[in-house]
Amino acid sequence: MDNQYAKLIEDLQQKNQVVMLTRFKTVTEADKTIIEKSLISKDELETVDKQLQKTIENILIKGMPELIITADNETVLCEPFYAEGRLIILGGGHIAKPLAKYGTDIGFKVTVVDDRPAFANEGRFPEASQVLCESFETCFDHLQVNASDYVVIVTRGHRHDAVCLRQVLDSDPEYLGMIGSKRRVKNLMELLVGEGFDEGKLNQVYSPIGLKIGAITPEEIAISIMAEIIGKKRLSQSVSEGPKRRQTSQSDFDYEVLENLANEDTEERAIITVVSKKGSVPRGPGAKMIIWSDGRSLGSIGGGCSEAEVSLAARDLLQAGSGYLTMKVDMTGSVAEDEGMVCGGIMDVLIEVYPSMK
Amino acid sequence: MDNQYAKLIEDLQQKNQVVMLTRFKTVTEADKTIIEKSLISKDELETVDKQLQKTIENILIKGMPELIITADNETVLCEPFYAEGRLIILGGGHIAKPLAKYGTDIGFKVTVVDDRPAFANEGRFPEASQVLCESFETCFDHLQVNASDYVVIVTRGHRHDAVCLRQVLDSDPEYLGMIGSKRRVKNLMELLVGEGFDEGKLNQVYSPIGLKIGAITPEEIAISIMAEIIGKKRLSQSVSEGPKRRQTSQSDFDYEVLENLANEDTEERAIITVVSKKGSVPRGPGAKMIIWSDGRSLGSIGGGCSEAEVSLAARDLLQAGSGYLTMKVDMTGSVAEDEGMVCGGIMDVLIEVYPSMK
Repeated sequence: MDNQYAKLIEDLQQKNQVVMLTRFKTVTEADKTIIEKSLISKDELETVDKQLQKTIENILIKGMPELIITADNETVLCEPFYAEGRLIILGGGHIAKPLAKYGTDIGFKVTVVDDRPAFANEGRFPEASQVLCESFETCFDHLQVNASDYVVIVTRGHRHDAVCLRQVLDSDPEYLGMIGSKRRVKNLMELLVGEGFDEGKLNQVYSPIGLKIGAITPEEIAISIMAEIIGKKRLSQSVSEGPKRRQTSQSDFDYEVLENLANEDTEERAIITVVSKKGSVPRGPGAKMIIWSDGRSLGSIGGGCSEAEVSLAARDLLQAGSGYLTMKVDMTGSVAEDEGMVCGGIMDVLIEVYPSMK
Repeated sequence: MDNQYAKLIEDLQQKNQVVMLTRFKTVTEADKTIIEKSLISKDELETVDKQLQKTIENILIKGMPELIITADNETVLCEPFYAEGRLIILGGGHIAKPLAKYGTDIGFKVTVVDDRPAFANEGRFPEASQVLCESFETCFDHLQVNASDYVVIVTRGHRHDAVCLRQVLDSDPEYLGMIGSKRRVKNLMELLVGEGFDEGKLNQVYSPIGLKIGAITPEEIAISIMAEIIGKKRLSQSVSEGPKRRQTSQSDFDYEVLENLANEDTEERAIITVVSKKGSVPRGPGAKMIIWSDGRSLGSIGGGCSEAEVSLAARDLLQAGSGYLTMKVDMTGSVAEDEGMVCGGIMDVLIEVYPSMK
């Protein structure tokens, strides 16, 4: 097998939205073969036939994996993948501290930049993936801000804010917010228009930053910013226009597992994927876990008894050497029903086994 | 001196809004005397003269302490105090975990209730002030929910949610939110109307809970709830109606210091209060710190050089034995101005010294 995961990671680094297709065929009950994996990125949609084009478009909008059965009785797992968004916090002051924490909780890879060593150090931001101690003039060479990033400008002074804004504007990040009073923001915007910056782009800057909840303390302001960012990520129009959910990146895949699949393609392994769910389960569709013949594993499909049960089945299939298997895992129970519980659900899981390439 | 702080704590426990008046007189430069402290609660406003009534009303609306000079040349410090709000989380599941953390960050005393020992334990909620392992039927006897509390109903099932809602409704908490899909919430509301509950009160329940930011994961939902709660606390009308800041409890006082002042009135001590500020300073007006003759201290007015400078002055005044002193602390500087910094400000501080009552 050509390593499609390596290509996937490459595509995602180019900020492409990609659907991975895995085609299966049940020849007999004992001969369940994985035919191939292929990738179609959003940019390549024109090149495939109309029917498939529509299917892929829908999956990218819904943002959830789907199992489809084709006319010639093939099963195809369609999995959507999206570039990973960073939360880049420019300025390491009193708002950055809670914001880095909340951003990490929410699932962002957080980068904090400040030019003062006392504010840009890993001790101050233990949760951040990256802490850069660099001048705001030069940091952007390292950052390479791109269209899937979320950028928050909260430096200690409006001169630094302006330096950052000038450099971030051209990168068109997914979200760009800047702190500051209405008056100060207005002055800066006028200055930048005067310098020739595009007024339309400046109007899209979230500034004054954060949802208007009357936040006063740094922690409250961080919550208001985080709520605004979640809204930008999850909704197709702004909160104030009346929220409408944006059906993207609901897949629960994690990058660490994808990166491993992209790198290590030589050993025999089973890939477990949550394909769909009903009710409340710990991990959603798209979640993946790798199990190797020597017992090692990476990632999680939710832990507990269910994961143990699926892992056992994966090990059996690894013994067989290749093929695939689908499983229904039921986490509901009479206790749950008695209490009117909303937790406890059912999930469909796919196990694929790939032989060693050594 | 009669301990007015003990009375203040009592008033606040009755959920009263209270203004403490401290009257000073400068007889000569060397004879600056504190005349007396007195309390006027919002409920007692009718009993004082019109002029004072208006002053106190304004201070309660603004929520910030103020120094006023009376006609007979007395200086009066007017400090507003508000009952402490708890964040009571009913249900210890996957949303309660991040919510307890964020609530504590925001400054709430957090209480978590669940009837399952595995979900209601201090190991799971290290930040919470109180974790109650009790049935939802009986927990309210211990909780004594009141008008300054913020209550979030996020139990594991709608039957428990209903049990909680029935009991909380009559306590009229400052905020009452309940999780659940639109349909499920609607059904429950209809059920309760049928049981004779007041429809107006039911309509005031924030449900489905949280700002509409498209939150999906437990952490995102916790942020959406926290943002809604901050909005309720800080704004005089809801976020969706167009935010308008609510000018209450902006004073930065902390309960621990007040409680100490209420309990310990026998030793000689200096009370330091931040009276006003300009620009950005670490602690706002209302922040208090106690310094005793033996060098101990409690509370903070922001730390750093400024606090050290004020503490030194307080110790000098303690040596003198009684009286008061006002100080202007300047935290701006040329470095700050050069960089267009918004941090760095000026604060006015009051030091009062009270002799031992032993």
